[in-house]
Amino acid sequence: MSPEEFREHAHRTVDWMADYLATVGELPVLTRVKPGDLTRKVPSSGPERGEPMDAILTDFERLIPPAITHWNHPRFLAYFAITGSPPGILGEMLAATLNVNGMLWKSSPAVTELEAVTLSWLRQWIGLPEEFFGVIYDTASISTMHAIAAARHMAQPESRTAGLRANLTVYCSEQAHSSIDKAVLTLGMGLDNLRKIPSDSRFSMDPAALERAIGDDKAAGLQPCCAVATVGTTALAAIDPLPAIADIAERHGLWLHIDAAYGGTAAISESHQNVLDGAGRAHSLVINPHKWMLTPVDLSAFYTRRPDTLRAAFSLIPEYLRTEDEPGVVNLMDYGVQLGRRFRALKLWFVMRYYGREGLAAIIERHCRDAAEFASWIEADPRFEVSAPVLFSLVCFRHRAGDAANRRILDGINASGLAFLSHTVLDGQLVLRAAIGNAATTIEDLRRVWDKIRELA
Amino acid sequence: MSPEEFREHAHRTVDWMADYLATVGELPVLTRVKPGDLTRKVPSSGPERGEPMDAILTDFERLIPPAITHWNHPRFLAYFAITGSPPGILGEMLAATLNVNGMLWKSSPAVTELEAVTLSWLRQWIGLPEEFFGVIYDTASISTMHAIAAARHMAQPESRTAGLRANLTVYCSEQAHSSIDKAVLTLGMGLDNLRKIPSDSRFSMDPAALERAIGDDKAAGLQPCCAVATVGTTALAAIDPLPAIADIAERHGLWLHIDAAYGGTAAISESHQNVLDGAGRAHSLVINPHKWMLTPVDLSAFYTRRPDTLRAAFSLIPEYLRTEDEPGVVNLMDYGVQLGRRFRALKLWFVMRYYGREGLAAIIERHCRDAAEFASWIEADPRFEVSAPVLFSLVCFRHRAGDAANRRILDGINASGLAFLSHTVLDGQLVLRAAIGNAATTIEDLRRVWDKIRELA
Repeated sequence: MSPEEFREHAHRTVDWMADYLATVGELPVLTRVKPGDLTRKVPSSGPERGEPMDAILTDFERLIPPAITHWNHPRFLAYFAITGSPPGILGEMLAATLNVNGMLWKSSPAVTELEAVTLSWLRQWIGLPEEFFGVIYDTASISTMHAIAAARHMAQPESRTAGLRANLTVYCSEQAHSSIDKAVLTLGMGLDNLRKIPSDSRFSMDPAALERAIGDDKAAGLQPCCAVATVGTTALAAIDPLPAIADIAERHGLWLHIDAAYGGTAAISESHQNVLDGAGRAHSLVINPHKWMLTPVDLSAFYTRRPDTLRAAFSLIPEYLRTEDEPGVVNLMDYGVQLGRRFRALKLWFVMRYYGREGLAAIIERHCRDAAEFASWIEADPRFEVSAPVLFSLVCFRHRAGDAANRRILDGINASGLAFLSHTVLDGQLVLRAAIGNAATTIEDLRRVWDKIRELA
Repeated sequence: MSPEEFREHAHRTVDWMADYLATVGELPVLTRVKPGDLTRKVPSSGPERGEPMDAILTDFERLIPPAITHWNHPRFLAYFAITGSPPGILGEMLAATLNVNGMLWKSSPAVTELEAVTLSWLRQWIGLPEEFFGVIYDTASISTMHAIAAARHMAQPESRTAGLRANLTVYCSEQAHSSIDKAVLTLGMGLDNLRKIPSDSRFSMDPAALERAIGDDKAAGLQPCCAVATVGTTALAAIDPLPAIADIAERHGLWLHIDAAYGGTAAISESHQNVLDGAGRAHSLVINPHKWMLTPVDLSAFYTRRPDTLRAAFSLIPEYLRTEDEPGVVNLMDYGVQLGRRFRALKLWFVMRYYGREGLAAIIERHCRDAAEFASWIEADPRFEVSAPVLFSLVCFRHRAGDAANRRILDGINASGLAFLSHTVLDGQLVLRAAIGNAATTIEDLRRVWDKIRELA
């Protein structure tokens, strides 16, 4: 395809993209296709001869949107709602065209340097100290895996060459995300060595229980190596008490990792800056701009005060071979598993500049205000109850009549196409979640959702 | 930014993209900036107030291209050259706009189903048996990590919960990629338990040496668990003898993983179909469409005959909770570390359809023909020698006068801006690499590079 043919197809594609962004709110949020529907509509073998791009784009327009659950929809309220914002999309367009791999500084300096620049900006916006070194991974799962790998290396550096020996134990709240489980099993540490610490009435980790668990493990001859605290847990958006956990981690020599993948973004706003109080004492922290910061997936920002440990855990190049680089050059391939590195910082640069700190803070604050208002409607209806404190923009609630009623509401609203909500289980009971996180979501959208819920109740 | 404002900025961006694709061949391939040059040109803190998108795009156009090493340049011949092809770029534009996360089938069925469809097409094109299940990861490093994790699980399923105990050993050629080292250390198996098997005069793994190493380890009480064979090694594009290695792996009960990240793509062409002979006996295989298959980074295709083992190693959801899904639904989050999943299959679908099997095969064959011709020019010049068999589209060569001469040529050509070549070290000597892999590269481009090399010699 010549550049001129590309120009023509890309202009057509842009018009589709702009039309989609303008009209996505009219589509059913949750897909209505059945398993296999799309598969049955496409050939079971690839074409021997090439096909015209116009025909391919027409097929895209015809076949793909019905098989999409529209994450970029203003009434997508499931999981944590996200936004593929227009400036972020422009960044991805350019990154795909440049198609660079930033594994080394010289393999495209803009990747390494813009990654450092944007993560330094973000670090300042969320109030982390300057000593935190930033690196972009694809997902929070991978960020957290690197955090726990660095913790493992700090506790048992010889494991890099000899393999794991002693039982290293890891601690997180019972409310923590499954990515911690996945990291522990991937790293060979064994799920039996992951302690799920009880949480209190606000679903925050109980520090006394953490300290007891560490003490018990030490007494049993195990080697505690890492505590993970969460700011904005997946199910309920609870916050673990960072200062108390940091005290314990310091006392026992544990690596402290903070999973702020969702909640950390709120610290950009003055009104929520305190959610990261104490985070500066952590060894590492993950925050996902692709969650609440208008950046298209994927982009997970990882910070660590111990880049030397992270690099010691993962770098394969002995120091004495490093002389070819000029001083101060960072080669990001040394800080993790992945060699390939997309130019992800570009979209983040666009988003941070287009919205500015104030603009992002205003969206975050609006989301939190709207969540509070949504919660007030629930509280005003005696049939319903709010199930957890609304600390961010997530509202967890339930119909008091029990699981069957809540299941009916959930299935009803999702089948209606009006909105997509997800659920969690709390104390054995079904709880509905309304996660506000799309930049286009308005209070009117939420009003329509609440009206529909009451209609179904 | 409203959809209409986006439309305007995106049309401007598309024109820049088309112009870039039309003119990238006139830019210096290797960046000329010095460390810190870009960083010094941007503010050290992010903007408090948002900025106009036009100003941001103007900054992009002014600041970023000089700090780019142009991987999409026809004379980028370093590492393995790649192509961000126009159809692939269109796919990325749409994927960024939809901004879905395909962690579950229902969270966007098109992601899961198009991933299965395109990987089935590719499986057929490279001649793998139908029993191979495909899943897309971001990079070959992550694909290989999952392969070795599955091998670990097959050998020691209790390690998932109890943690690693016995020493599990892994085998690869001394020519194999560092991603195997990274996987072994990440998985907690210890680099001391990775055996680098000697290669023969064609840089292929010596099967007899592999068998001896396995025997020695068994005799020493270790537990051999995985052999990795490579089709198209990183330094020299050598091929390990798959049938002989498969025999040994079967005899000793090892998981056999094939790293065909680069070379596997050649099997799309009839002329190179045999490079994957024996691959159907492997437990897993990785092939990277983002390398030689015109697909923008990132997209690594992973195949395994043992999806049950992969899932047993990584899934966190007990079977009895799986009843909500309809039969036959695959949730790709169960097959790996990452929960987040971009809609990567879309660009692959576009590329496979636009070029067709014949179109891709024609490009692969042209690259291989051009590499052979480039090698013939080298052989015709008594000052130079070809350093390794040219099995694909990579030519490794050196000036006979020694390292200083080769270093001068390498630095000279890279500094000239005409082309970017990388190097490797073979038997202690510097060897230059010309990797042909960009769809726009012509024989005239290579002629210009060779003329420059001779001029520098």
